[in-house]
Amino acid sequence: MTTASLTIDLGALAANWKALDAMTRCETAAVVKANGYGLGVARVAQTLATAGARRFFTAVAEEGAAARKALGPGPEIAVFSGHMAGDADLIGQNDLTPVLNSADQLVRHLESLPGHAFAIQLDSGMNRLGMEPAEWAALRDIALAQGPSFIMSHLACADAPDHAMNAQQLAAFTEMTQDVECPRSLSATGGILLGPDYHFELTRPGIGLYGGLPFAAAQAVAHLSLPVIQTRELAPGETVGYGNTWAATAPTRIATVAAGYADGIHRAMGPKTSLWHGGVECPIRGRISMDLIGVDVSHLDEDPQMLDLLTANQTVDTLADAAGTIGYEILTSLGGRYSRRYAGA
Amino acid sequence: MTTASLTIDLGALAANWKALDAMTRCETAAVVKANGYGLGVARVAQTLATAGARRFFTAVAEEGAAARKALGPGPEIAVFSGHMAGDADLIGQNDLTPVLNSADQLVRHLESLPGHAFAIQLDSGMNRLGMEPAEWAALRDIALAQGPSFIMSHLACADAPDHAMNAQQLAAFTEMTQDVECPRSLSATGGILLGPDYHFELTRPGIGLYGGLPFAAAQAVAHLSLPVIQTRELAPGETVGYGNTWAATAPTRIATVAAGYADGIHRAMGPKTSLWHGGVECPIRGRISMDLIGVDVSHLDEDPQMLDLLTANQTVDTLADAAGTIGYEILTSLGGRYSRRYAGA
Repeated sequence: MTTASLTIDLGALAANWKALDAMTRCETAAVVKANGYGLGVARVAQTLATAGARRFFTAVAEEGAAARKALGPGPEIAVFSGHMAGDADLIGQNDLTPVLNSADQLVRHLESLPGHAFAIQLDSGMNRLGMEPAEWAALRDIALAQGPSFIMSHLACADAPDHAMNAQQLAAFTEMTQDVECPRSLSATGGILLGPDYHFELTRPGIGLYGGLPFAAAQAVAHLSLPVIQTRELAPGETVGYGNTWAATAPTRIATVAAGYADGIHRAMGPKTSLWHGGVECPIRGRISMDLIGVDVSHLDEDPQMLDLLTANQTVDTLADAAGTIGYEILTSLGGRYSRRYAGA
Repeated sequence: MTTASLTIDLGALAANWKALDAMTRCETAAVVKANGYGLGVARVAQTLATAGARRFFTAVAEEGAAARKALGPGPEIAVFSGHMAGDADLIGQNDLTPVLNSADQLVRHLESLPGHAFAIQLDSGMNRLGMEPAEWAALRDIALAQGPSFIMSHLACADAPDHAMNAQQLAAFTEMTQDVECPRSLSATGGILLGPDYHFELTRPGIGLYGGLPFAAAQAVAHLSLPVIQTRELAPGETVGYGNTWAATAPTRIATVAAGYADGIHRAMGPKTSLWHGGVECPIRGRISMDLIGVDVSHLDEDPQMLDLLTANQTVDTLADAAGTIGYEILTSLGGRYSRRYAGA
């Protein structure tokens, strides 16, 4: 009972997928990389399959194998990093669809797994993954003759709708995929919100499914409650935690909760973050430790048993603002020590 | 083969324990909480037991059970969070020694597991865990009559040797433990370095075992290599990664490696961090993504297959400086997606 409890609302997850799906007239896939954005790939993928997703995306082949184990045969499971050296067995045995990013990967795939499914990623300007325009021009006929499952690219600035990069990448992707017969995919969550020009035949939402910005209408999926180990009274002048960074200026009651930065609660968020007892805000006092956090509960009527860090109102984006990062990083940092509970299936 | 490879040097781990043990005339325990500071509690605990540790510390009872599974019967496994409601079975079945932090915990323990081992934590001023001086004065005779395994406290400012708080906590702990017959413990790694006044009968090093500051003489334990997915040429003006935060000013060759902030590589370290190809520095370009990082390899003679993030010279503290945090947080963030390899046993 000393480990904190992370509750994942599978009903909210399914509702978010359906809401993003309803924004387009095309097929909607689901990105479940990084262990389902930290929430557990097995239950996440199963829930999204039930909601209607038929195509899933993972980052690496090992993740694809875990998704296949959860989903069973049928749904397509694509791997963004493509076909790396040594991956043929994992790809073959788990019926994965590598998203080939280069001539090297195309050759490796056709040689080691002839006739096996694949997709293509093109670089439309982000310079991260995918074939360059010149490379694609040289390989296009060979690749298309083998019947790729889909062709995709990725937007660098979709979270900033007015950024000129969006139209630039749209034009580059459109140009590179003219007269292609398989489904084309350019957009993750941010691209879906940019409107129909960006949708093509397939979208691939990730963060929006899990309740994160830029999908402001998303329902919160992750709820996190931390158990209180003990509470104590401080006299004015007494300090809390490492480095004595906070000192009481009045009589204060401090609760110590059993979670810390080893659980993905970034130290950087400490000074600006509160925990919650129902609707009552309880500010963090002193530095976040590896396994412990001090919280001000002076104004509560009772000593709480648990205090909440992620709620319907205090989301991963709230914490990200306090830590100077993005909700994606808060989500994918959620630690292995939490007991994960699934609700609302 | 697309997942990154974290190599843990068990020889360095054992050497660090022995070096810290040699600095005192007392018993040296080992802190293995947070999954052995992110490196895998089973192999870490077994290695430290072979090196000579006979007492281990975890944060919560669930971690204690994992350590017991690795160590078998014999060594003492203490739990810093003490005896929480609902923990009696875990504590009893795994022969754990809860470090009782309050009157509530003392009563709970004596009632639910009479005769079972326990230890005591006293608060000497950090106001995080442990009994307050007045609480201890009231309970001392009852607690000592039951034969605690040891009595401990924890320093808030041990990493700053000149901080007045150190002498203050030393005086408070000495005062509270006068005429106590069981072993007393005040110091983790930082306290060991403060000198013999702080050692008492038992020390509890953590971070120093794993190669982190403040133990500057520690050997590096964690080595991390990231596989390259593909490399590409950029013309001047082309950008890399989300938000177009980096633009090439000359022809540039960029390698994309398969790891990112979902693997604990904090986004915040991006602009100031390099990867290494042998002794050659390769700066990160653009933002760190969830699963991918762009790296400048223009000046290499060949396209690398792997690039190193943690080496003997670029340690967790180097990365922590770049990210604005401490080595402890970098270590305990090391992700679940890495393939962990143990060397030097």
